[in-house]
Formats: sequence, structure tokens, C-alpha cells
Amino acid sequence: MNLILLDAEDFVSEHVAELHGARLAHVREIHGASVGDTLRVGRLGGQLGEARVTQIDADVLRLDVELNQPAPEPLQVTLVAALPRPPSLRKVLQQATAMGVKRFVFMGARRVEKSYWQSHALEPDEIRRQLWLGLEQARDTLLPQVTFRRRFRPFVEDELARATAGGNRVLAAHPGAASACPRALSDPITLVVGPEGGFVPFEVELLSASGAELVGLGDRILRVETAVVALLARLAP
Amino acid sequence: MNLILLDAEDFVSEHVAELHGARLAHVREIHGASVGDTLRVGRLGGQLGEARVTQIDADVLRLDVELNQPAPEPLQVTLVAALPRPPSLRKVLQQATAMGVKRFVFMGARRVEKSYWQSHALEPDEIRRQLWLGLEQARDTLLPQVTFRRRFRPFVEDELARATAGGNRVLAAHPGAASACPRALSDPITLVVGPEGGFVPFEVELLSASGAELVGLGDRILRVETAVVALLARLAP
Repeated sequence: MNLILLDAEDFVSEHVAELHGARLAHVREIHGASVGDTLRVGRLGGQLGEARVTQIDADVLRLDVELNQPAPEPLQVTLVAALPRPPSLRKVLQQATAMGVKRFVFMGARRVEKSYWQSHALEPDEIRRQLWLGLEQARDTLLPQVTFRRRFRPFVEDELARATAGGNRVLAAHPGAASACPRALSDPITLVVGPEGGFVPFEVELLSASGAELVGLGDRILRVETAVVALLARLAP
Repeated sequence: MNLILLDAEDFVSEHVAELHGARLAHVREIHGASVGDTLRVGRLGGQLGEARVTQIDADVLRLDVELNQPAPEPLQVTLVAALPRPPSLRKVLQQATAMGVKRFVFMGARRVEKSYWQSHALEPDEIRRQLWLGLEQARDTLLPQVTFRRRFRPFVEDELARATAGGNRVLAAHPGAASACPRALSDPITLVVGPEGGFVPFEVELLSASGAELVGLGDRILRVETAVVALLARLAP
């Protein structure tokens, strides 16, 4: 854990925070902290800083908190992905959050298995847990937004097409696309990633007709979670 | 499975291959193939192509194989990584192989736990399994080489320093490095990645003194397996 992320509820006064229960146990186990030690902390949605341990035992970790540094810059990428199978979903959420994505949309597609929509991994607490881990990994504090659009066609025809009509750039990653994925973009963009096995031809046509640019990463086929990290690294300024 | 990779031992004649046992079971389960179906195949160290199923039952999958396409270009990056904990090692091997890395060196470092060197994940069969999965994922056929250098100092002072003295470019990824990791390199390079928690100052100095350039990916700290994919994507031409 590179950062202990503190929620508003963890603060008992402006500069004092307390952790209990599972999070206390986790910090004791990972950090083995003692009274007087200094830990890196961040406030959810706020700044980063340091905290001095003033009490640590089986009941409580009490911290004197001093926040004085900004969180890292977000990545200006909205990630739209065909809902991956649950283990991939967890990795995509955690890794893309660590890389700075602040907006996720998971959508349906022909090759998204129906059972994925019933997975435990989609429950709000599970989603939040992965985002939280990504933030603590990357020393970030701003929780991303995650939305779901189960129906591919209306999402692409309405929301994505409206985005491109409004001047927003939408890149759809598609193995074998003629154009290589661009590099180092600083303007906000939307990145669309397909399911394992890719989009079916009808979906590719609809994305293209809705103003998305089809882009590729060469002739290697990558797992969804690998492709997401590779594409974000390439797009990052 | 995007490709069935065939070993020399799988061929019973120039154009006929047979799979048995666990690999047969895997293909039956994943592909549900029937006689007459066409599957994508590759020959280990050789070309890609297609195979027609001429027999499939509980005993054998027999294929008529036609190889006629080159494997994808390798990535001209030697990946040197401080030995990660076993689950990360598996991910690094599989993902970097899928991205085209053909040479891995895993080395010791201060923050590499001694127990990692005793892990089952380092056994040749386990290593080969991850490489194989990476090749099948990316539709590639050339098995990478994997070597281990348990002692950091002689490896860096002798082998890495000799590489840089010979004109080879060595990039060492280090969070907080002043230079940003370069993009789109087509010449061969060596990429050095530290352990979780990073190299200690002595190691950073030794890398630098041995001719490695310290490069970073911004102020976010990524897990080793995420950082490897992000760095490779950034370096890929």
C-alpha cells in the first residue's frame, strides 16, 4: 500500500483521523507501524500528505494528518469497455484507476456473455474496492465514476454519436484497424475497447458510423486487461 | 485461445499433427471443434497458418496443417526485471510475451524477497507454460529466452555495463526519474524494471554509473505487471 486513503468518515476532527476494524488490521499487517511513525495518506477527493501515528492497538489507529500536496493529474480519457468477464473487470478497474482514468462506462456487446451482468464483481461495494485499491496504488485520491450501459446500440447511436457530433474524439480499438493508435494526446478523448474476441462486424460498422475512429496496436491480439493498459500508456501525454 | 501452437513433437508427418491428453482436452473444451472445422495454428519457432480437423475424439485431434504466414515481428526490447513475487512473475511473463518480448532476465535486488527464488513459478515447466500462453494469446510462435541473475551487482556492473559500453541503450524505469520514458523506439534496447517499492538508492546509483538512463512514467506508482505493459506499449514502434 503506497497510500492510506482516508474517507470523510475517518476524520474525527480537521487534523485527526481514526481507522478501525478491517482497515486497521490491514494497516497493522502491511505497515507494521508504531507510535511516532509517519505514513503517506490522502483524503478521498482531496489532497495528499503525511500522518503521524499517535495511537495504534487492536482497537484503533489514530493519526495526526497534514495534507499539503495536490493529487496527481487525472488522465483525460473516458474508458468505454465491453463488459469483460469478472476477473478482467476487476483488473481493468484497478489498473486503469491507477493510471488515472476517472470515467468508466461498461457496455453490452454481442460477445459479452449474459452471465457477466449478474456477477458479484458489478456490485457497488466490489467496484468501489477495486477503484480504492487503484487509487492507493497510484497515490491518487479522486474516485472514478463507473456507469453501465447494457444495450450497445442505443449507447453508441445516442451517447457516443452525440459526443463525436459535439467535437469529442472517440477512438475504438479494433485488432487489424488500418490506423495505428495515436500517441500522447492531451485533449480529452473517449477510448472504446471491445470484448475478448472483438466486436462483431455490425458493431464495428455502428461505431464507425457514429464517428469513432478505428485504431489498432499492431497484429498481436492482447487480453482486454493488457490492451487497456497498453492503450492508456500510448495515449497518455 | 487465439492460436493452437504446435511443437515439433506434435507433427507425425510434414503436414499432419496430432494432439493427445491434456492439450486435446483443452482444445475440445475451448473450441468445441468438429471434423472439417478450420483452426488457426502456428509451429513453434516457425510460421502461422490453418489446420483442418480430420479426426477428433477422446484419443486424438488430428490436423492437416498448412503453414504460410510469418509470425509477428518481435519487440526489440530485452526486459530485465527485479524478480517479482510469483503471481506478478506469471503475469509479467505472459503479458510481455504477448507483447513480443523475446528476452527476459530476472535479477536480484535489495527489495526482492529471498523466498521468491524458491517459488514453483520459477521451474522451467511453469515458465514455459506462461510463455506458451502469451504466444497463443498473441498468435506468435517464437518462444522467448528467460535467464536468472540472482546477484544484482555483478549483473549490472558486468553485463549491463558491457552492453552500454558496446553502444546498447539501457533504460531503467524509476519512479520520480527526471526524464520521461521515450516513445516509439525501433532500435534494440534493454528495459530495466525494479521491484515493488523500487530500487534502493545504491542500486539506482549503480545502474546510472553503468550507463543506464533513468526514465519515468509520471508521478503515479504502478504495480510491476502494469508498469511493464505500460512501458513496453510506450517503447513499441
